[in-house]
Amino acid sequence: MDCDVYVPRLKASISQWRQQGVKGVWIKLPIRHAHLVEPTVKEGFRYHHAESDYLMLVYWIPETPDTLPANASHTVGIGAFVMNNNREVLVVQEKSGAFGAKGVWKFPTGVANQGEDIWTAAIREVKEETDIDTEFVEILAFRQTHKAFCGKSDLFFVCMLRPLSFDINKQDSEIKAAQWMPIEEYMAQPCIQEHESFKYVAEICSGQSNSSCSGFRPVPTLSTSGKKSYTYFNKLQLQNKKKELGG
Amino acid sequence: MDCDVYVPRLKASISQWRQQGVKGVWIKLPIRHAHLVEPTVKEGFRYHHAESDYLMLVYWIPETPDTLPANASHTVGIGAFVMNNNREVLVVQEKSGAFGAKGVWKFPTGVANQGEDIWTAAIREVKEETDIDTEFVEILAFRQTHKAFCGKSDLFFVCMLRPLSFDINKQDSEIKAAQWMPIEEYMAQPCIQEHESFKYVAEICSGQSNSSCSGFRPVPTLSTSGKKSYTYFNKLQLQNKKKELGG
Repeated sequence: MDCDVYVPRLKASISQWRQQGVKGVWIKLPIRHAHLVEPTVKEGFRYHHAESDYLMLVYWIPETPDTLPANASHTVGIGAFVMNNNREVLVVQEKSGAFGAKGVWKFPTGVANQGEDIWTAAIREVKEETDIDTEFVEILAFRQTHKAFCGKSDLFFVCMLRPLSFDINKQDSEIKAAQWMPIEEYMAQPCIQEHESFKYVAEICSGQSNSSCSGFRPVPTLSTSGKKSYTYFNKLQLQNKKKELGG
Repeated sequence: MDCDVYVPRLKASISQWRQQGVKGVWIKLPIRHAHLVEPTVKEGFRYHHAESDYLMLVYWIPETPDTLPANASHTVGIGAFVMNNNREVLVVQEKSGAFGAKGVWKFPTGVANQGEDIWTAAIREVKEETDIDTEFVEILAFRQTHKAFCGKSDLFFVCMLRPLSFDINKQDSEIKAAQWMPIEEYMAQPCIQEHESFKYVAEICSGQSNSSCSGFRPVPTLSTSGKKSYTYFNKLQLQNKKKELGG
């Protein structure tokens, strides 16, 4: 669409919206219409969010404070704790990054894709980095960090998975080495001992296999709008309650 | 900056970056430079993300697959379970929305602000909606939903808080009514019984006060880069482990 056509139409629409008492107006501009960004901003719109291929602009018309929903604020990452029957834990050395440079052996980690469940992301990352098949058990802990990438926050979920296969075939582009390592050896690494949050997690993980009172397990649920979702909680708690009720 | 100055400079920079083997290039354009969006896109950049006052563009120069960090994918919401010693739970009726229209009594809920901790957001929302002071106890459950607002995902944390004051003084703009309601009455509402995820949460909450094996509690930790963060986990688990070890 040409600016000469777009701008008068936009002006007319805004004055109509104002008359109708419309509050928030959204305009989603595909990246191929990048030439319309400037004229839209000139008419009073601000940016709301952007993805690779579009920019979402918004205009709050009334004088009242804007109640527009916020932009996404968090990235979601996972770390996978996978232990075999010999109390050996699945660890990798990364090719790049601070941990790679120090030669730290760490859990497979990664970022959840847009729209991917936490438990699915954990299984996928372990498979991608080590070729080990796993089933998801539970979330042991999570950490919230702010001012991470681009000022956004991050939620990092430590997931326990049960190995279904044992022969490692490491991914080449990002992983220098992968192995099953005795949990005591993993925990003794200076990097784990030095960082509070790693240390907590390592302690939880090492205790985990003997414990039944535990983390949060996913249960498929429907949201109020009928969307499939997963609710994570301590299932034991619900079972105890049901026993108390004679259920 | 004028386009006539910007475009030749950008072209020169790109050819220099290419020679230097630079991979990912980021350009952050303040909204007052909206006129530079189109020329930047024309030189091969795509959108990465945007906030109210700027647009971040990115260009992955090499032929290899791009390893750029993902845009934020999740909003974070909280629901607050606050129960007094009479097993009455703090509930509100909203003025707008689907629940408001149905007259459902629900937990105080809200969205975490950018950079706000989950536990802080829970305390703040209860205070804002009802004027009740609370202290944070633990996270009882959370739910991950996809394709929520603007195709993003949502993580909703159900938090248990202990009331420190009891006189309700409701917020006027969004809340129609607020009260302490017997937990059995809250749970008997058709809307709670009909929705799986609400029902689980209500069952967990109603069992909670008798239970010690439990949810995830926040512990302040430092991230690897020295940032203050909170790690949430079942503390009981760690205590049990320490007892086993004679700690």
